[in-house]
Amino acid sequence: MKVGVVGASGFTGGELCRLVSAHPEFDLVTATSREYANKTVGSVHPNLRGLDLRFSHPDDLDDLDVLFVAAPHGVTMEHVEEYRDIADLVVDLSADFRLDSEEQYDEWYDGHSAPDHIPDGVYALPELHREELAGANLIASGGCNATATILGLKPLADAGILDGADVTVDVKVGSSEGGAGGGAASSHPERSGVVRPYAPTGHRHEAEIEQELGVQVGFTAHAVDMTRGAAATCHVYPEEVPGTGDLWQAFRECYEDEPFVRLVAGSGGVYRYPEPKAVAGTNYADVGFELDERNGRVVVFSAIDNMMKGSAGQAVHAANVALGIDEQAGLEFDGLHPVGAP
Amino acid sequence: MKVGVVGASGFTGGELCRLVSAHPEFDLVTATSREYANKTVGSVHPNLRGLDLRFSHPDDLDDLDVLFVAAPHGVTMEHVEEYRDIADLVVDLSADFRLDSEEQYDEWYDGHSAPDHIPDGVYALPELHREELAGANLIASGGCNATATILGLKPLADAGILDGADVTVDVKVGSSEGGAGGGAASSHPERSGVVRPYAPTGHRHEAEIEQELGVQVGFTAHAVDMTRGAAATCHVYPEEVPGTGDLWQAFRECYEDEPFVRLVAGSGGVYRYPEPKAVAGTNYADVGFELDERNGRVVVFSAIDNMMKGSAGQAVHAANVALGIDEQAGLEFDGLHPVGAP
Amino acid sequence: MKVGVVGASGFTGGELCRLVSAHPEFDLVTATSREYANKTVGSVHPNLRGLDLRFSHPDDLDDLDVLFVAAPHGVTMEHVEEYRDIADLVVDLSADFRLDSEEQYDEWYDGHSAPDHIPDGVYALPELHREELAGANLIASGGCNATATILGLKPLADAGILDGADVTVDVKVGSSEGGAGGGAASSHPERSGVVRPYAPTGHRHEAEIEQELGVQVGFTAHAVDMTRGAAATCHVYPEEVPGTGDLWQAFRECYEDEPFVRLVAGSGGVYRYPEPKAVAGTNYADVGFELDERNGRVVVFSAIDNMMKGSAGQAVHAANVALGIDEQAGLEFDGLHPVGAP
Amino acid sequence: MKVGVVGASGFTGGELCRLVSAHPEFDLVTATSREYANKTVGSVHPNLRGLDLRFSHPDDLDDLDVLFVAAPHGVTMEHVEEYRDIADLVVDLSADFRLDSEEQYDEWYDGHSAPDHIPDGVYALPELHREELAGANLIASGGCNATATILGLKPLADAGILDGADVTVDVKVGSSEGGAGGGAASSHPERSGVVRPYAPTGHRHEAEIEQELGVQVGFTAHAVDMTRGAAATCHVYPEEVPGTGDLWQAFRECYEDEPFVRLVAGSGGVYRYPEPKAVAGTNYADVGFELDERNGRVVVFSAIDNMMKGSAGQAVHAANVALGIDEQAGLEFDGLHPVGAP
Repeated sequence: MKVGVVGASGFTGGELCRLVSAHPEFDLVTATSREYANKTVGSVHPNLRGLDLRFSHPDDLDDLDVLFVAAPHGVTMEHVEEYRDIADLVVDLSADFRLDSEEQYDEWYDGHSAPDHIPDGVYALPELHREELAGANLIASGGCNATATILGLKPLADAGILDGADVTVDVKVGSSEGGAGGGAASSHPERSGVVRPYAPTGHRHEAEIEQELGVQVGFTAHAVDMTRGAAATCHVYPEEVPGTGDLWQAFRECYEDEPFVRLVAGSGGVYRYPEPKAVAGTNYADVGFELDERNGRVVVFSAIDNMMKGSAGQAVHAANVALGIDEQAGLEFDGLHPVGAP
Repeated sequence: MKVGVVGASGFTGGELCRLVSAHPEFDLVTATSREYANKTVGSVHPNLRGLDLRFSHPDDLDDLDVLFVAAPHGVTMEHVEEYRDIADLVVDLSADFRLDSEEQYDEWYDGHSAPDHIPDGVYALPELHREELAGANLIASGGCNATATILGLKPLADAGILDGADVTVDVKVGSSEGGAGGGAASSHPERSGVVRPYAPTGHRHEAEIEQELGVQVGFTAHAVDMTRGAAATCHVYPEEVPGTGDLWQAFRECYEDEPFVRLVAGSGGVYRYPEPKAVAGTNYADVGFELDERNGRVVVFSAIDNMMKGSAGQAVHAANVALGIDEQAGLEFDGLHPVGAP
Repeated sequence: MKVGVVGASGFTGGELCRLVSAHPEFDLVTATSREYANKTVGSVHPNLRGLDLRFSHPDDLDDLDVLFVAAPHGVTMEHVEEYRDIADLVVDLSADFRLDSEEQYDEWYDGHSAPDHIPDGVYALPELHREELAGANLIASGGCNATATILGLKPLADAGILDGADVTVDVKVGSSEGGAGGGAASSHPERSGVVRPYAPTGHRHEAEIEQELGVQVGFTAHAVDMTRGAAATCHVYPEEVPGTGDLWQAFRECYEDEPFVRLVAGSGGVYRYPEPKAVAGTNYADVGFELDERNGRVVVFSAIDNMMKGSAGQAVHAANVALGIDEQAGLEFDGLHPVGAP
Repeated sequence: MKVGVVGASGFTGGELCRLVSAHPEFDLVTATSREYANKTVGSVHPNLRGLDLRFSHPDDLDDLDVLFVAAPHGVTMEHVEEYRDIADLVVDLSADFRLDSEEQYDEWYDGHSAPDHIPDGVYALPELHREELAGANLIASGGCNATATILGLKPLADAGILDGADVTVDVKVGSSEGGAGGGAASSHPERSGVVRPYAPTGHRHEAEIEQELGVQVGFTAHAVDMTRGAAATCHVYPEEVPGTGDLWQAFRECYEDEPFVRLVAGSGGVYRYPEPKAVAGTNYADVGFELDERNGRVVVFSAIDNMMKGSAGQAVHAANVALGIDEQAGLEFDGLHPVGAP
């Protein structure tokens, strides 16, 4: 299948190039970059030095089977007619088509310029929308912090444990979330070693979480010293505190057949809980929990690679489902150990 | 004044040696280490290469004015008679004398072997116990995570905002908290780049927080990739949500005369909230907050250096108060900028 | 093919498990660990959580097609008869069979207990020994620092530029080189942020470099803050200084057909020279150079992942060659961008 | 004394503000920043949150006793008349007045606009120019990489061991060297975890090294993952190889009375050689060496904090000498242990 990537010189776009070029069913034919047009993809993404492809100009898109768009919020909605005309399947990685209604969009972002297409957008997580994804032709890949949170809380939502519960989500994210280029705040001397509150209140991913799970959460994100990764710690105070067995059942029922969610419950050793570095470079979401009986609290941990399960990997996974090919195609990498701060 | 440090080859002990040796009123005469007896202090702590002092054996303690004890939990209670005999002022950095009653101690730790001395112990934070510290002769320096949390929440406690509030505390800590030596979990390949849940429930610092503030908190700590530092993010859901002005007033009233607490409320720039790296090496606690009206939540941020305000600095500060000398003596270092991951 | 890994709970052993389990021609049937026998491989290597295999005891080895041995120096020589009896192909990752003669071995290490097998050992780098590897049944995977150096300098050796040249090699390596477990020096608080001279003189990898290239080098290694990676900076002062064109020709002739060596000569952008993080997780060696006319010096840069091209990846590559299967089988991963400090 | 800092919002300027404001003889009255004029110094440098001073415009300089200029290369030469008019002592931290002659300057930089002042400039290192500094009124603080190299090699130069020796210097530097702001190359995702060749040939600090020591060196710098710090590894091949005793004598004679140079020769433990993190935040240069008899090589290690001994600390030290006050005034900080990647 002929596949293109718009916004290919950015971090997420580069990750898509990596995944598409190694995908058994995909052929990466186009990678656009306004700034780097005519330069090799490998000149920007050093891992792809061996790839024989140059960036093309975003205005020069030909017919494609699949188009991934890794552009800033607002770009896809402007070009959505054109993109859908060019490609049978458009997978957008911005927020443009994540929310189900124009009203929701307007509440959290600025006005939407292509509201007619909103109903066609399917939220990309197969763990929640596998059936709607089959045959979809407009897919909206979720936000990385929202993805980590949603996957952590979904078992509790399905089991009714979130009904009436108070939920606080404290997320720790890596610097790739800020994108390439960066200003003073993301310069190495300022950004390294941080535990820096980031969007401590009013984070727009709250909208996705509420839409997908039906629960309102107090959400705060922190930048920490890693490049890739998002870890959501969800502090849940249910109306009625479940037992550990109930919790295990809820998580198992939710995820036992999911190829990209791993339940983590180490009884010993170093890696007893989900950690983002254990999933770096992979499409896995590792989830686990601990019961705090003293405080009537369930603490859920969810760890993903924000560049993979949190964006590019999720997008490819959803495309695989939409196209009816092997869900795991192109996403088999198991990650590294040991690994520092990917 | 003649000052000694027990447990001087550990991280906290080394920090005490650094502070005491540079203190204008203190003379570091004894630094004990069973393992490194007769070696120079600088052979273990490379920052103290210029210090002309060798570790002595802990059994060879002479009379002192002040004795700081940086030993594992349980050591001070075993030797408390001897220590108090030797020194006019004993400052203990373990948990042995932090809790006000033997009952409390037994609930969170194993049995106490010197309960008669418990009533003499004063919790070290001058921001809470300045009057009791004056003239004290047994001081218990607080836990680092507890200290960060207590200093963040105290303004809300004083203003009554914590009464009936639900409170979740999510702490991020550096690797020095684990102490020198370390096993597999703290080896560099395993420990670097982590966001690792650490004591996700049942953390013993909850006892100190409850004792000092009268509030029960859902507490979870995470190891992150820094050596020094503890950052507490306190998610507070008050019964009645205060306004931003009320919050400012609460924080100002609490801390406007405190030499080691800085209110952080940047309106722009990189450093708008408290961050541990901005206080690394210093005795400051930086505190700040944000109001989340949508969720009825006050998010309080508190950042300290776990080795300083979280242990050795707090201990020296308390000793200064107890001895009636300048509170800031020996604690004037302002920290560095830029600084990576201290 | 039935493949086993001895020493599978260590870092290199875990990397072998990862590569073998994902290899299209290999079937990982045995992974031994004395310490973790009967525990799952994923309990030690969190990236392999999905792998359905438990460590077995090293005494319980059955017949295999290929046996990879990732044990400390000295183990393989003790068991070499047994290993070669069990498996058609033994690939050893220690130094036991790297040097061509017992005399060389004795000069740099302690006495060899199986000198009769030394002549059978083939040094693993296919870039130097592809023909001898075909059909070999005892392969010695090289040292990581030696590998980086040898691959950097080989083009100059082949072109005669090293004849009579003075060569200094300054290597920077990650913490995984120290292996799992680690003591005080490799604990996170001590090891993070370092530029620490490590084996500044007399490094035993000098022996391999001299054997493979016929040149004696002044060699110094430094530990730096990454987990994976080895970067060799080779300062070469040739008797006659070549031109840049000559150098390009030398590097191209040497490596134009090599699947795992990439010449790096960026004319702009961030990644203009070889860097270990650009090859993390991959089997690539990135090499490049710069001519210093003022000082009559050629500076060669060579970057590898010490766990991959520097050990486990090199071992699998060599096994592929020895077995006559696709050289790149199981080694296709292209690496990540961005990536922090893998 | 009334002291001002030009360029005070940059990293070096901020470090000068920190040192001057805590200096017992200095009074920081002016800190200029075109970009941040009227904002508090603490809004840019979070460690100085407690400092009651706002940036002023660089055109509004009043009379001063001492003026430190931390501006890009070329600024001081343009304003040198004005600066020397305003202040009795001008300490420049750029390269403008480091080289002794206009010819030298033109060879390594672009044309000099104030050559008449070149003869007045004294190179700041007191270890080399203590006598000339006494009473100087124009001081040129050296480059950080040059400083590390010069202090490492000076004992060998004084002892005649450098005469006719071949010298290669391989430097590892932190990200603060790149200054505040930064572009893509210094953004955290690209810059973290690197071992990145930086100015591999033709580095302009070679000029200073040659001027101060009379030896031409093959010089290559690498960016590594730390914020502060410069470590020079000097590979010296003397015509006649000295013994270890000779080397010790050379180093002792050179530095035994120097307050800011420490000889490091640990016989055990973690910190046996100079390392930048052990001097972070301090004005120390730690130097040490190892003899490589096999290769006829002396390996010298020199570690400094590039922001301190490599710029701001060196500048204050030189000013102290020039002004006839206690050399160590304001530079007493001993550094931290443990410390991550400052």
